[in-house]
Amino acid sequence: MNNLSLAQKSYLAGFLDADGSIYVQAKINKTYKYGYQIAPYVVLFQSKKENNFKQICKLIGAGYVRQRKDGIIEYIIGKIDDISEFFEMVEPYVLLKKKQIQLMKKIIEAKRKVKNKKDFKALINLTDKFRELNYSKKRKFRTLTP
Amino acid sequence: MNNLSLAQKSYLAGFLDADGSIYVQAKINKTYKYGYQIAPYVVLFQSKKENNFKQICKLIGAGYVRQRKDGIIEYIIGKIDDISEFFEMVEPYVLLKKKQIQLMKKIIEAKRKVKNKKDFKALINLTDKFRELNYSKKRKFRTLTP
Repeated sequence: MNNLSLAQKSYLAGFLDADGSIYVQAKINKTYKYGYQIAPYVVLFQSKKENNFKQICKLIGAGYVRQRKDGIIEYIIGKIDDISEFFEMVEPYVLLKKKQIQLMKKIIEAKRKVKNKKDFKALINLTDKFRELNYSKKRKFRTLTP
Repeated sequence: MNNLSLAQKSYLAGFLDADGSIYVQAKINKTYKYGYQIAPYVVLFQSKKENNFKQICKLIGAGYVRQRKDGIIEYIIGKIDDISEFFEMVEPYVLLKKKQIQLMKKIIEAKRKVKNKKDFKALINLTDKFRELNYSKKRKFRTLTP
């Protein structure tokens, strides 16, 4: 991830607050030890008409771009280390999504420490809390739970 | 309008780029000299679930909040002097809406200088250009033209 100026970090904090999403998916996946893959995401959105959006993605220097069928471009940060680094940069300037950032940091921490099924259940419960935080926003993401 | 820090200005630039809109309406109004009211707007959007959004509005210290029936809160800056001041603060940090800001500044300038019907027609033509800039964005605003 790139080394950004204060102005760039605050800009990204504003962008994330306005048109970003922070969430975790618990995906059923039998190849994982406890039957689920815990996948955290930070996503920024724009319409595909916005040619300069990719500049912003380059600014961050991590993650990837996905074009949806409805014409929305998603810029997705999905690697835990990238998410942690991104949060470190923008958290001081974020005004609306502070709770989501704190919850995600807690989940990342809990994920690192999973040693047994009990730990994993606690982790799944944490991911569930995103439902309350993100519920009834303009864009809806659901945490998939067992 | 409040005196903001560099971090606050860049934050608002990011917010505006992500979930803001800059447009001009030419409203039919017989009480105006040339039959139209030229109304410029800068709008920031959020869902009404976002309680802290009003903090951001307070940060700016101009404009007003309107709650739409669909649950979206609009923070609207509609006074020309406020728009000019807002642009002065955020323009250096804006990445995606530079063209809209430049066009709006041109329109504000042209509006100030209107002396006759020819000037006014040129002004109306300028407002029309927002259609091209904002066309096919996620949210659609149409400039009303004769």
